[in-house]
Formats: sequence, structure tokens, C-alpha cells
Amino acid sequence: MKAFEIHGHGFGGLKPVQRPSPRPGPREVLVRMRAMALNYRDLEILLGHYHTPFAHPLVPLSDGVGEVLAVGEGVTRARPGDRVILSFWERWTDGAFHPADAGTQLGGPQDGVLAEELVASEDRIVVVPEALTDAQAASLPCAGTTAWHALVSAGGIRPGDTVLVQGTGGVSLFALQIARMSGARVIASSSSDGKLERARGLGACATVNYRRNPAWGEEVRRLTGGRGVDHVLEVGGPGSFAQSLQAIRPGGQINVIGYLGGTEGLVNPLDIFRRQATVRGIPVGSRRMLEDLVAAYAAGPIRPVVDRVFPWTGAAEALRYLQSGAHFGKIVLAV
Amino acid sequence: MKAFEIHGHGFGGLKPVQRPSPRPGPREVLVRMRAMALNYRDLEILLGHYHTPFAHPLVPLSDGVGEVLAVGEGVTRARPGDRVILSFWERWTDGAFHPADAGTQLGGPQDGVLAEELVASEDRIVVVPEALTDAQAASLPCAGTTAWHALVSAGGIRPGDTVLVQGTGGVSLFALQIARMSGARVIASSSSDGKLERARGLGACATVNYRRNPAWGEEVRRLTGGRGVDHVLEVGGPGSFAQSLQAIRPGGQINVIGYLGGTEGLVNPLDIFRRQATVRGIPVGSRRMLEDLVAAYAAGPIRPVVDRVFPWTGAAEALRYLQSGAHFGKIVLAV
Amino acid sequence: MKAFEIHGHGFGGLKPVQRPSPRPGPREVLVRMRAMALNYRDLEILLGHYHTPFAHPLVPLSDGVGEVLAVGEGVTRARPGDRVILSFWERWTDGAFHPADAGTQLGGPQDGVLAEELVASEDRIVVVPEALTDAQAASLPCAGTTAWHALVSAGGIRPGDTVLVQGTGGVSLFALQIARMSGARVIASSSSDGKLERARGLGACATVNYRRNPAWGEEVRRLTGGRGVDHVLEVGGPGSFAQSLQAIRPGGQINVIGYLGGTEGLVNPLDIFRRQATVRGIPVGSRRMLEDLVAAYAAGPIRPVVDRVFPWTGAAEALRYLQSGAHFGKIVLAV
Amino acid sequence: MKAFEIHGHGFGGLKPVQRPSPRPGPREVLVRMRAMALNYRDLEILLGHYHTPFAHPLVPLSDGVGEVLAVGEGVTRARPGDRVILSFWERWTDGAFHPADAGTQLGGPQDGVLAEELVASEDRIVVVPEALTDAQAASLPCAGTTAWHALVSAGGIRPGDTVLVQGTGGVSLFALQIARMSGARVIASSSSDGKLERARGLGACATVNYRRNPAWGEEVRRLTGGRGVDHVLEVGGPGSFAQSLQAIRPGGQINVIGYLGGTEGLVNPLDIFRRQATVRGIPVGSRRMLEDLVAAYAAGPIRPVVDRVFPWTGAAEALRYLQSGAHFGKIVLAV
Repeated sequence: MKAFEIHGHGFGGLKPVQRPSPRPGPREVLVRMRAMALNYRDLEILLGHYHTPFAHPLVPLSDGVGEVLAVGEGVTRARPGDRVILSFWERWTDGAFHPADAGTQLGGPQDGVLAEELVASEDRIVVVPEALTDAQAASLPCAGTTAWHALVSAGGIRPGDTVLVQGTGGVSLFALQIARMSGARVIASSSSDGKLERARGLGACATVNYRRNPAWGEEVRRLTGGRGVDHVLEVGGPGSFAQSLQAIRPGGQINVIGYLGGTEGLVNPLDIFRRQATVRGIPVGSRRMLEDLVAAYAAGPIRPVVDRVFPWTGAAEALRYLQSGAHFGKIVLAV
Repeated sequence: MKAFEIHGHGFGGLKPVQRPSPRPGPREVLVRMRAMALNYRDLEILLGHYHTPFAHPLVPLSDGVGEVLAVGEGVTRARPGDRVILSFWERWTDGAFHPADAGTQLGGPQDGVLAEELVASEDRIVVVPEALTDAQAASLPCAGTTAWHALVSAGGIRPGDTVLVQGTGGVSLFALQIARMSGARVIASSSSDGKLERARGLGACATVNYRRNPAWGEEVRRLTGGRGVDHVLEVGGPGSFAQSLQAIRPGGQINVIGYLGGTEGLVNPLDIFRRQATVRGIPVGSRRMLEDLVAAYAAGPIRPVVDRVFPWTGAAEALRYLQSGAHFGKIVLAV
Repeated sequence: MKAFEIHGHGFGGLKPVQRPSPRPGPREVLVRMRAMALNYRDLEILLGHYHTPFAHPLVPLSDGVGEVLAVGEGVTRARPGDRVILSFWERWTDGAFHPADAGTQLGGPQDGVLAEELVASEDRIVVVPEALTDAQAASLPCAGTTAWHALVSAGGIRPGDTVLVQGTGGVSLFALQIARMSGARVIASSSSDGKLERARGLGACATVNYRRNPAWGEEVRRLTGGRGVDHVLEVGGPGSFAQSLQAIRPGGQINVIGYLGGTEGLVNPLDIFRRQATVRGIPVGSRRMLEDLVAAYAAGPIRPVVDRVFPWTGAAEALRYLQSGAHFGKIVLAV
Repeated sequence: MKAFEIHGHGFGGLKPVQRPSPRPGPREVLVRMRAMALNYRDLEILLGHYHTPFAHPLVPLSDGVGEVLAVGEGVTRARPGDRVILSFWERWTDGAFHPADAGTQLGGPQDGVLAEELVASEDRIVVVPEALTDAQAASLPCAGTTAWHALVSAGGIRPGDTVLVQGTGGVSLFALQIARMSGARVIASSSSDGKLERARGLGACATVNYRRNPAWGEEVRRLTGGRGVDHVLEVGGPGSFAQSLQAIRPGGQINVIGYLGGTEGLVNPLDIFRRQATVRGIPVGSRRMLEDLVAAYAAGPIRPVVDRVFPWTGAAEALRYLQSGAHFGKIVLAV
């Protein structure tokens, strides 16, 4: 079967290879992939910018959907023919993250999903209902679980809350949708008025162009009548963190998720004290969170936003497109 | 100013009286009432069926909206001109119920809202936004807070959950709406196909006529694909509790709220153990829950269901109509 | 290797057998047992009184400690030489119970620990520190996890709370100890003044002889200055549930765990409403709860109470002793 | 009656004055003070170093105990003769902090407790049991509630957890004691070996001299077998925050409380992400937290640590002593 492996950093380092078809051991399933979805982390790993280096060759990509071809001994979580997605952390199935769960991330250090077939522990699979297309299902695991973890599992979001989502990347659009299905109001920020318009189309009640408003924290607060937002999904990095502290209400929550605006920058931690804020780091989430996310989408009409579908053999091109920042929603690869 | 008082049990016991206009003391507000809403408890108190007897005369009714005419010394929670509703428990402002909060329920033992004017502690008032009409605002305190407490504050409802609401009384319709705004699925039961049709119109995805299905617990479970519901609002009394235990998933929640089907009946508490259920009694809720409920309605398009508006001087007639069970939604009195 | 199997109901149905030494598959461990501990459920299963019948032959007993002899492929949770205990539910590792976790209980329907060797999924093992003896470690899984689940994981016990423990069986003594290490006060009940004296020795601040006080719910409330207790571990069955409702404060919690006083009896569920109680069924607990329990014992000087140690080949005699009710603390079998 | 007021910044700005005896209005109580306790905030306010300036004259000090001399109309929370302490925030009685609760802190901006008599809203009083001396009771409100809020209300501390307390100031010693009564292990840091010895005497299982170990975060982690602590009470300011991030386990909690080591310093918020940490600012706490703290102390043998008692007219001298840092435990003023 065909797969892609990273043999060196840079787009040229991604190589097609032939591998023998894998066989599932006990409590493992063999999956024939049907679609994959890209995350910013995939780009960092390929380009060698990720904070942790991984051994090569590495099959990249964390998110995907496929069909179960065969199951190993003792498998109870799926049957051949089931359509399944895969959870990021193999061992983190439920509850709080435990140090013993570390080191099992899909797409680095473990081989990822950019392959025609793969074998996965049944601990990490989640059956997806027909209501979701392949492209939609493939989009859920990393970005969707991160947003669910931040807002629902850790954040306890409730109807009437207000959420700030930064930009229109994968996590931010999932957060927008999860906030909307939870009865919350959403304020979206972006440097592009066109993307802000599309965020309004998805249900954002107010928007801020952070390029035109460098002091956008104050502007967000103004948009809440001076009260401040309850939840922030901080994907901008240190540079936007100080503005996020301005944007929240006393006692509000900031979920630190990413660093699209760069990793450099500093804040005084006493500002967290002064705003009575809760700040937490969100490392994607557990399989149970992914299952709950799937159930939430299945229960309503909202669907993940898919920007564009590439053939899976064009993964490098798709990653370049991700790098361009022109997308709005998930970039998907179809097998 | 004019008010109504209960001087004896039965509809004839409700008498119009003239009272001097009250004056607000420190941390109190004077409110001119604009609308009231009825609860089943009001009927029980008037007819002498309530489990706790109250001293007469008693101004009845717990729910209402009015305009602040004047504020006493030290008041910070409202200004003259504000439109406010009143929380059921004067002293239970936030957090968990505390025994010291007991004895301060509006409409018995404390004088209620069936009066042109009243004075209330500022601890119990909540300012309502313009988005809600008087009739809608008056409907919220008891029934709405009860449903919010059960599903949101105690139940931690999340998108993708499934909720069973029994009948189409006040608490059940609020629960239906709060579940919908929380991204949950709703199954509604009733003895009337017409009311079930209306429940579907409000977003229930499935319905059960409990008269035609005496074993409706099984039927509800079947409607969830055999899994069982996550939350039940048990308003039927002991007779329906055993069916509710059939309807929930292992680990599901039953909120015991009312007894519209009568107070007699027994269950074996080991059935709670066998279903791994959580069962809790819901005594309306705190002022903070009411504030959060108001914010939730203000953030979206859903509005409380008002069945019919009577003139406030026709309170007895409105209570008879409540007794008939013909209504669907709240019965409101307009001043 | 030698094991015992249930071939028919009654003490005579427990038969010694020879079985081939098992071999661990992937993610499984081979354990040489060193000690086992008895639970009331074991007695019910042997005598055929358990609410669910299991297929015979069945190796009985759920609780035990042993040494890891060998590990299968992919095992990361233990190494040969580790001393481990086993969690009751194989698949319930963390978070809330999920219907998919059902059917994996040790000692019925799955073969239990009354054997010289056994193979277990690594999902269910927990390494125990040296601070605990074999007999102490063997005592923890079922009774200890149940008490931890009720008071800590679900109950959120805090310093200053008051807990009622009924009788002096395994769960109740663990609850007494966990309450004490959590800074809570304990009231213990028993029909034996001698056992109450011993409960005081373990830190109970007050006791009630329920034989001499049939209305012991009132007596417990009196012992709290009229306030009522925060937590009850209800192990008596329906007959004591009504008294437990008398014993709690408004808003208190009752954990329904067992039925040592019989399974017959009825209550009106509206009494749960009137006491604003939370009632929950406690199905032992997850592996994470067991891990946390082990950590809690390891952090302090308190040790599980072991009543008496029998040779493991005398399991039937030990179960008869359990049936007699003469014990105070866990009954242990040593290999 | 006699009181002290701040008329200007610096020790010389604290002036004795005569004021008329106050009278309690509705829902207020008149308290004759018996003892006060000092907090670092009091020193900052007097010296003009506090981040928010307050209008002068201001009666200083937040913590104290006194006897109720008289109660105003409608008071239900105390009777004359009760011994009471006062909660820091008048309006924050329970639940989560709400912006509307702001501005009501005792000892700035509201007049504090350094007076023979004062009038307080009954919302802020808590009756204390005889088991606590005046000096112990006076010590509880600010420092004790802060530690309780961080570890219990927000942190959900449980038996077996590990807590890092920094230094031996008021909050840190309360945290040490609350952790011990919760069954947790405590690691204490200080620059003084003598104080570390005393922390061991209070139950700390390990200690770190941060002067000798500038990389004390690693040392703390080493003391937990490499795992990291669950909870940190960060009182050192930005300079110690980076070490605290080293000291916690993945998913651990840092409570930002103070800045005894200075207010200057910066961190990269992505480090919070990388450690999967939860960081929260702790603004003292609610009256309910103070009530729960009182109940926790009343339930066990542990007592607040009082370093030294000054006559209340020597408040300036006592504040100088606080400034010296020579104390271990609370500095109390007796009337």
C-alpha cells in the first residue's frame, strides 16, 4: 500500500513510499483511509519548526477518517465496515490527562494517517455516524477536540456566555460552532474583513479587525457593554495574550492553544491575578471528548467548515495552501 | 394600592384589598407590578393542598415583573425606571442552597406579587433586558429557574445530550427550550397528541403519548437507540418515577421537581443503585441562576411560551384555567 | 497452577481445580497472586443470591494483589516484579462510567482472582507502593474504590463536612478512613456497641446504635446540632433509606451502595425532593479512582483495617466467616 | 470610641482618632472589636505601595474578630453576644465572583477594623465557635480564605495530592494546614532554614531553601519523584512563576496570589500551554468560603499559627514587625 513519509525537513522532504499492508494485533483495527485533514502542527513538523523534533521517517498528519477492514482479537469498539476517526492521544481515553498518556500522539512521534492503510489501537477509534461526510468527519479530531476541551469539558460553557475566537483557523471555527450550539454569543477577530464577514455568516454576533484595532482587547470589551467576554481561545501567541487579558471579564477564562502570531513575547503573570483570570493550556483532548463532539454534531444541523478538498497525493500542495493562510475552514485530502 | 390576599382556602378565599403604598427601606426597592405569571404551587396554596400551610392573609403568586419606582438607602442593584423580576428565595443569591436561606419564598410564606406595588429586598431583584416582553419576563422566575437549575447548574447539560421532558407545563417547556439552546435533543411526553405536536414545533425530536404507552420508559429508551436519555425532569410524581428510571442511560440524571400525577406511590431505592442513577430534588434555584437564565434568553431568539394573558384582577379565573390543564405554556396576568 | 471455581451454588459448589498456567497476550500481564480479599458480593455470587446470575464454572473473588511475572507485547503500565492490584471494571479506566464499559467485572462475569496465577489486561492493573502490606493492598479495590467514588470523586468531600457511615463493613470502614483523611467528621452506626467502640477508635466522633434507636435518622441529626450530615453511605438497603433522608441536611447526599439489611422496601421519591437531596447509585469505580485511592493511603499513616487472614485454600471457611457478620474490617486470604 | 485612620502614607500617617459610636441600620450589626490580624496588603496601603490608591482618611486593616453589641432591623445572621469575624468582600457572599461585588473590600476602599467599634452589613459576618481563640479567629478571613479558595473551592484538593507552599507568610501557612487537613502532602520553600524546620513541624514532608537552590523548581520536582506537584500557591511574584511552572506536573495548578518577591518580571504564556497548566488569580474569596474554612478548623485539632500579639494601639509597631519579615504566622493585635 502507498503512504507518505517525512524524510527531511521542507516540502521536498515528503516522499511517497510503498509499505506492506499492516495487520491488526489484539485490540487493534486495520483502517483503509478515506480522507485526511490538515492542522498547522503538520506544517510545523514537515518544515522542522515544531518545538519537539521527531525521528524520520515519519508518516505525517493526525486527522483522518477511514473504513475498518479488519479487527484484531478482543476488539469491541468497532466492526469491519464501520467508518471511524482517530483520536490524537492513543492512551488518553477519558478523564484528566495523565503523564503516563504522553508520547502517543498521532502524526508525531507515532506514524500518522497519510497512508492508504494503517493499524490503530481500538483505544483511539471513534465510529462516526452517516450524518457527517468523510471530509467533515476527517476534520474533527485535533481542532474540534481542542475547541470542545477548552469550551465544554474545561470551560463549562453555558447559554448566554460570550466567547472570543481569534482568527478563522480550524480551532477557532470549531470554537465558533461549538459556542453557537451551546447557546453562547461569539465575537470573532481577524485581519481580513472578508473572513469576518464569513464568521458573521456562521453566527458571530460581532467582529473585530485586529489589524485596524491593535488595542482590540478594549474593543472586544466595548462590544460586550464593558463587561468582558467569558472565554477566549488564545491562538495568537504571547503577542495577543495581553490583549486577551483586556478582553475578558473579571474571572474570565483564557485557553492557551496556539501561537499563529509567533512564539516570542512576554507577559507579567500578576496581570492574571489582577484580572482574576483562569488561564489554561489545552493539549487537544481525550477520546471521550472526541466522542462527545461527534455526538454533538450528530444531534444538530451544524457541520464542520471544509474549505477545500485536495487529492491525497497532493498533500504537499495542500500544506503549502495551509501555509498561505488563504483558507477559511479545514483543508481536506481525499483518497 | 390594590392587592389580592388569600383569606381562606378555595377560589372564593382570594379577596381584593386596599393596602397603603409601601416604602422601601435600606437595600429595598419599591416595584410597581406590570405582569404576573402563575405556577401550579399558587393553585395548591390557594386550595389548601400545599404540603406546608401558610398563615393568612397572604398575598399570593411568586412570579412577576414590574418597574422600580424608588430605591432605599444603599441600593446598588437597580435604579428607578428599571424593569425587574423577582427571585423566589430572598436569601439564596448564589452558590448552593444553605439552610439559613429557608423560609423566604415569595408567595408563601412571604407575601407574593399579586399587588399593584410591593417592596422587595434588592437581593432578590434581577433587571430584565428589553428583548423580553412583560409577559415573557414574568414567566421566568420559578419555572425557568427550576429548569435551568436542573439542566445547567446541577446537570451540566452539553451539546449532544438527550433530555426527557414530561408533559407541557411551565417547567417542562422551559426545560425543552433550555435543552434546545444548549444543543441537546429533547424527547417530550404528554397525554395529548395535540400538545406533542406543539412540542415538536418547539424543537422536540421525538414524542411519546404516555397514556397510550403506559410503559413509556421503554419507549423513550427505544427512541434513543436503546441507550437511554441523559436527563429527566420528573414532574409526574412517584407514579412516573419508575418509568423515568427505565428511560435513562446508566449514569443518567433524574431531577425530581413535581407531582402533577399525584403524591402517592413508592419505589425501591435500590433501583437507583442498579441504574447507577443520580436523583436530585430541585427547589427552584438561586438568584444567580435566574440572572444566568435571563442572560441566556437575551442572547438568542428563543422566547418563553406564553399561553394566554388574563387581566390581573381575574386571577381566580386564570387559576381555574390553570387547574383545567388546557394550557400550553405560561398563564400570565397583565396589570 | 491451582485455582478455585464455582460449579454450583452453595459453599459446597466451590471446587479446587488445576488449570494450565496462562500466558499474557499483547497489553496483558501475568500475575502470581499473593493475597485476596472478600466482598459481600462474593458471598452472594457463591450462594446464588446475586441479582445477576453468571455462567459456571467461574473463578470467584474480585479483590487481590500479586506480583507481575511476565508482560505481553506493548505493556507500559507494569514490569515483571511489580506488585499490582486489579481494578473491578476492566474497561472503565477513567472519567464517567460508559455503557460500553459494562460486562467486564472481575469475579463475575469475568473469572476472578481466587487462583495462583491469572492474566489481566494492563488496563486494570495498579502498581502498589511498599508502604502497603499485601493484605492491605488486596483490600483496596472494590470496597475502597466504592467509598472513594462516593465521597471524593462524586461527593467532593471537604474538610469540615460530616459523613454518616452505616455499620462496619468494608465500604463503611473505608469511608470512615477516607472521611478522616479528608478532614471530615464521621458519625458511625452499628447494632453492636463493641463495633461502635472500635469505630470511635478509628476516629468516629459520634456513634448511634441503630438497634436501640430505630429512629436513628433523627438521632444522627441531633448529633449534628440539628443541621444534618452532608454525606451518607447507604449500605443498609431500602429499610434504612428513609432514616438516611432524615439524617441529611437539606441538599445533602446519599450514596446508594448496598443492601445488607435486605432488598425489600419502598420509599416515596418525593421525599428526595422535599429534602433537596442528591441520591446516586455507586457502581464501584474507575481504575483512576483506585489509583488515586492508593496515592491517598500512600501519603499518610492510615492503613486499611484487616480483620483476619485465612489461608487462601480456606476460602469457603473465610466466606462463612464473612456471612457470620462477626468481622470488623476486611477478611483476607493469603497465598 | 477610639479608632486609627490613615491620613498620609508612611508609618507616621497612621493617627489615633475619636469617632462617635456607630449605630447599625437595617441588616447591619454593631461589633465591638476584640482582636485584629495583619496582612501584607495593610502594609502596602499604609506605605502607599498598593496598586490601587484609596481616599484618606481610611480606617485600615481587613481582618478582625469582635462581639456583636447590637443588631439592626431584619438581621438574621447574628445575635448580640455572638463572636463574629468579617469577610473581605461585603457583597461576594457565595458562588463565583461577580463584577457587581467589586469595590466592597474591608480596609480599603471601605473603612477597616482598626477601631474599637464598627458597623458591618450582616452579609459579611460569620459567627465563630468557641474552639477558636480571639487571635486565631482574627487570623482567618483574608489569608485563610485565600488559601481555602485556591486549594479547596477552585483547586478541588484531595487526599494524596501534593502542594507547594512558598515561604511562611499567612497564606502559605494556611495553605500548609488546609493541605494537611485535606490529606495532601506539602513541600515548603523558604530562604530560612529555621523557618523550614518550623514548616516541617507543621507537617511539611519536604522543604527547599530557595536561596541555596535558585533552580528550586527542578528540586521540587525531584522531591516528588519527578512527577511534579499538583498545586502551587504562588506568592513570590513574576520572578518565581517560572520556577513554579517547573515544579508542577503536567496539568498542575498555579494559584497566583501575591508578589512578596516584587512585581516586576515576565514569562512567556506559551509555557503555560507547554505544561498544560491551569493558572488562576485568587482574589481572597467569598463569605461562604470563609464559613466553610471556619467549619473545617472547628472540626479538627489544627489551629492557625499566631506569631505574636501586640496591643492594638501599637498597630504601627506591629506593621513594622510585619515589614521585617521575621515573623512565622499571623501578627495579631489585641484590644
